Amino acid sequence: MERSPLALPFPTLGPIAGVRIGTASVAYKKWTRDCVTLVELAPGTVVAGVTTQSKCPSPEVELCRAKLPQGQARGLIVNAGNSNAFTGMSGREAARVQAARVAEVLGCNPDRVFSASTGVIGVPLPVDLALSGVTQAHAALGQADWLAATNAIGTTDTFPKAATASAIVAGTRVTIVGIVKGSGMIMPDMATMLGFIFSDAAITPALWQQMLQAAVAPTFNSITVDSDTSTSDTVLAFATGAADHPVLKRMDDAGAYALAAALADVCRQLAILVVRDGEGAQKLIEVNVTGAVDDASAKRIAMSIANSPLLKTAIAGGDANWGRVVMAVGKAGEPAERDLLSIRFGDTLVAEQGMVVPGYDEAPVAAHLAGQEVRITVDLGLGHGRARVWTCDLTHGYISINADYRS
Amino acid sequence: MERSPLALPFPTLGPIAGVRIGTASVAYKKWTRDCVTLVELAPGTVVAGVTTQSKCPSPEVELCRAKLPQGQARGLIVNAGNSNAFTGMSGREAARVQAARVAEVLGCNPDRVFSASTGVIGVPLPVDLALSGVTQAHAALGQADWLAATNAIGTTDTFPKAATASAIVAGTRVTIVGIVKGSGMIMPDMATMLGFIFSDAAITPALWQQMLQAAVAPTFNSITVDSDTSTSDTVLAFATGAADHPVLKRMDDAGAYALAAALADVCRQLAILVVRDGEGAQKLIEVNVTGAVDDASAKRIAMSIANSPLLKTAIAGGDANWGRVVMAVGKAGEPAERDLLSIRFGDTLVAEQGMVVPGYDEAPVAAHLAGQEVRITVDLGLGHGRARVWTCDLTHGYISINADYRS
Repeated sequence: MERSPLALPFPTLGPIAGVRIGTASVAYKKWTRDCVTLVELAPGTVVAGVTTQSKCPSPEVELCRAKLPQGQARGLIVNAGNSNAFTGMSGREAARVQAARVAEVLGCNPDRVFSASTGVIGVPLPVDLALSGVTQAHAALGQADWLAATNAIGTTDTFPKAATASAIVAGTRVTIVGIVKGSGMIMPDMATMLGFIFSDAAITPALWQQMLQAAVAPTFNSITVDSDTSTSDTVLAFATGAADHPVLKRMDDAGAYALAAALADVCRQLAILVVRDGEGAQKLIEVNVTGAVDDASAKRIAMSIANSPLLKTAIAGGDANWGRVVMAVGKAGEPAERDLLSIRFGDTLVAEQGMVVPGYDEAPVAAHLAGQEVRITVDLGLGHGRARVWTCDLTHGYISINADYRS
Repeated sequence: MERSPLALPFPTLGPIAGVRIGTASVAYKKWTRDCVTLVELAPGTVVAGVTTQSKCPSPEVELCRAKLPQGQARGLIVNAGNSNAFTGMSGREAARVQAARVAEVLGCNPDRVFSASTGVIGVPLPVDLALSGVTQAHAALGQADWLAATNAIGTTDTFPKAATASAIVAGTRVTIVGIVKGSGMIMPDMATMLGFIFSDAAITPALWQQMLQAAVAPTFNSITVDSDTSTSDTVLAFATGAADHPVLKRMDDAGAYALAAALADVCRQLAILVVRDGEGAQKLIEVNVTGAVDDASAKRIAMSIANSPLLKTAIAGGDANWGRVVMAVGKAGEPAERDLLSIRFGDTLVAEQGMVVPGYDEAPVAAHLAGQEVRITVDLGLGHGRARVWTCDLTHGYISINADYRS
């Protein structure tokens, strides 16, 4: 697969104290690249997580959900090439056995091992490969850097996606590193494909979970590539507590807002990277909706626009087809008043008060659409609700990739 | 545009007593074909209708909504090439003025003239062309047959779509003829693009409206091409009363169920024809959902499957990717239990009880998918709710058509 034209360079990332990574190659698919990632987390590491709202989740998602309430983690195992979703009892058993082996090699309780798998749906994870992957990756612990781990968790991704941010908590510098995979089947519903975030922050599980949930709503939950929600969406955030600052317990504690902001920043960067690697994407589209009756209404309208195949193909064609924006607003089922609506492409006002602006000049709009980053802004003129979501255009590339993915 | 490979021959259609049609060419777009259709309806004609639920409907839709409660019609005017949607006061005035001119030439109250326009959004209907179209089409009344009318209401349609059915009401044969246009921007919400149905039945407006609404739910409201709901969706059904039978007033009257069934039959034929002309369609896909907790839940799950770009591209590629069916069921947000789910392609059981069937043989499934008509059946194993919807595959043709529609 060719590298997305919207790809960004891999960032410079330092280590996170308390995190060691090993990867291994066991060929879940016909490939030689590493596809098993084991992360060892220092004793005392706290975990927060959000998972897909799909009614047909993978067993790995179910295991994460069961373990998250305890808020403690010692290990993470990620399989790429096989999602293990919809594989019945044998898939569930494979996930359980693999986590148990991780607990064994790390010397911890299985409840502190988190799992994620991504790839084809419907093929049970082969237990022998899954166990061999754990053994090999454990032997390699400390040898894999962030780039190696990011590559090892990917499937149809065309470039490795990671982000970092820092915060000063009670005078101590705390670092956050996040890695993510995802390209198609992307309309996260309380999570994204697979995202893993690591920090040396010292924090209680409850506050870390609260920060993650707040960060996910305007980031991972505000992107869509193709409106299709995965069975495996998972974001896990680990805080090893290695940083030398008093444990954060409440948002009122010094530095808590700074840490939450840094976490949100990493989530935002990762989410947009996923859209930049959207299947077939040639353009990154930011949809802003303002003036809705409330934020939830704005979000539904923004998603209706961002999921419209007609609007996404128009952008692919460089066509300032604002009529399709009107259509997408209209179909959202949310309060909207045609004659109060205004629409901008980039900074150019295109339509207001129910019609095209007098003397509309398409030239600056065409210039904006010719770029790689397109911004569409719709003001509804009804209230103060607002939302921002990101998507990509819909191109022949998407069809080519997906008309023969499984074969 | 090439004729859809799923096109059906135009049916043989007789006249409906009380209906006269004229068409005219006024070049709303750069074309020479007829694009204005005037239908004169005999005095006493009853009308029923359903229109889009879009929050940004066209002025024509608003005019229909305002006039439908009276239930009486003498004329119908249809413009193709310009939808007149989102055109502010000038668009509303253009629609009003054109309907007034129709009332003038037909010698009736403007409240009995129904309007519909289809085409590009955002360009006010040019009043001079709209009025000239009425004059020309009026002069041609009686000269256009059903095929001419069907061609004149089309836009991106690749073949003319019509259907007919008959019923015996109190010993008298009653005929229904319907014509429809639509190809993209198709996920009707209480209606389709533009559908016009004509009958010589004698019936009260209330009963006719009741029959139409009942017929629309499992037909026009059960199709989707691209999940995009039009600003102009309208289905109008006219009953001239020319047939020699006692006026139908209640469903208990002799022949009422037969007429309702014939009306539903025409709606079903027309709705499927629209999918057969879906933009870029190479395959007609029927999605059946059974065993849901109720019919509404089944419908939402069926639509989630039918709107999944990943499933639609898989079908385009002839790939029995039932994992994508699982994904689409899971994202629908409706009650579903992975381990009770079963999935069939054609007549072949592919997966049940949360996993692929033992000894799954892909050969008969591949053979089924190689055909032009694909049937997917999902049983949820929860209750008695069921739904059936129709869609088409998602192909390069859809991208090609829509990346440069407006230019």
